[in-house]
Amino acid sequence: MTEVSQLKVGVLGGTGPQGRGLALRWARAGISVVLGSRSAERAEFAAAELRELAGVEAITGLDNAACAAAADVVLVAVPWDGHRDLLESLRVELAQKIVIDCVNPLGFDKQGPFALPVEEGSAAQQAAVVLPESRVTAAFHHVSAVLLAELGVSEMDIDVLVLGDDREATDTVRALADAIPGMRGIYGGRLRNAHQVEAFTANLIAINKRYKAHAGIRVTDV
Amino acid sequence: MTEVSQLKVGVLGGTGPQGRGLALRWARAGISVVLGSRSAERAEFAAAELRELAGVEAITGLDNAACAAAADVVLVAVPWDGHRDLLESLRVELAQKIVIDCVNPLGFDKQGPFALPVEEGSAAQQAAVVLPESRVTAAFHHVSAVLLAELGVSEMDIDVLVLGDDREATDTVRALADAIPGMRGIYGGRLRNAHQVEAFTANLIAINKRYKAHAGIRVTDV
Repeated sequence: MTEVSQLKVGVLGGTGPQGRGLALRWARAGISVVLGSRSAERAEFAAAELRELAGVEAITGLDNAACAAAADVVLVAVPWDGHRDLLESLRVELAQKIVIDCVNPLGFDKQGPFALPVEEGSAAQQAAVVLPESRVTAAFHHVSAVLLAELGVSEMDIDVLVLGDDREATDTVRALADAIPGMRGIYGGRLRNAHQVEAFTANLIAINKRYKAHAGIRVTDV
Repeated sequence: MTEVSQLKVGVLGGTGPQGRGLALRWARAGISVVLGSRSAERAEFAAAELRELAGVEAITGLDNAACAAAADVVLVAVPWDGHRDLLESLRVELAQKIVIDCVNPLGFDKQGPFALPVEEGSAAQQAAVVLPESRVTAAFHHVSAVLLAELGVSEMDIDVLVLGDDREATDTVRALADAIPGMRGIYGGRLRNAHQVEAFTANLIAINKRYKAHAGIRVTDV
């Protein structure tokens, strides 16, 4: 399995709940993390909070461009609104790097959540179009931000589907999932099959509402 | 939980692998099953085989229209090609009944499986449009036909996501999943969120290829 303990992981949108939660878990697993945000100040403020929570030093905060430049692997955990614009602005910083897109393009109305249509097929495919020199993967869509933040939950009971067309990149991202206790990275197909993984988050939200749960999935027979 | 042992379940496409497999498991669970096929003769031939395999009497075979008319709940397990035409031809027989669509509109090319676009959004939504007087649900998309047929597999290790807008109908379909040992029916959202559940079968096929598995999913924290 790929050695990830030497990687520096950047988290764009690192002050949002999903980004913060994964940053916290990676930091506790001994991985260096850089939070990115529009404001370097807000990023550093969030990093200081996480350093205290995680009881580790290796979390810093920078503006998004400096975060992308500093990191070896970059998680994109920003709201769907602004996804394209942000990535377009970071094309140079993200060139040659492994990019992990975990964005779920969802809408909400009175009947609950639903998948938004995406011109490129999915958020991950949009990232691949916008970042032709990056190694784009898709993963971590279904991980509950609530459970990530709850350090009383020592094991995350979830499989992370990792999609992409670059085997070495998906192996590295799977190893980043495996680094978090209880989590398991499973190869989940090519990037063109990312839409349904992103959209499935709408189903998990419906399940959470019906069963008062923080649902995730496990893949059986693997 | 809904009492399903008194229901007669029809299986359109009952001579195909998915339909046969579910019919076999339901019959062994004590539920009466009617296989439907274009040819009543082929349906009865398949039913005779399943009666022997299952060691039960309550499996019969009829042509699709007679199957739809005879059953209380009808599983649609036909190939995507011809899905619309078949359902249009059975509008009268299926009126007022619970219809369970398990069809996955997939294409295959050199890079493997991918989701086909569906004008109505998904196979299940197409069924709902074509069958306005039926109670359309979507379920059983991810169940491996290979494992269903393998009676040495006494417990199916899988959750079945049941989607639909009619609570009583989805509860009945969940109970039909619960009736098969090891299987669990979980409410999975409204019918408008069926596309990604159908399309996710492409990811499971990719997983099966990579891991040499018959993958399914379990929902955690439920």
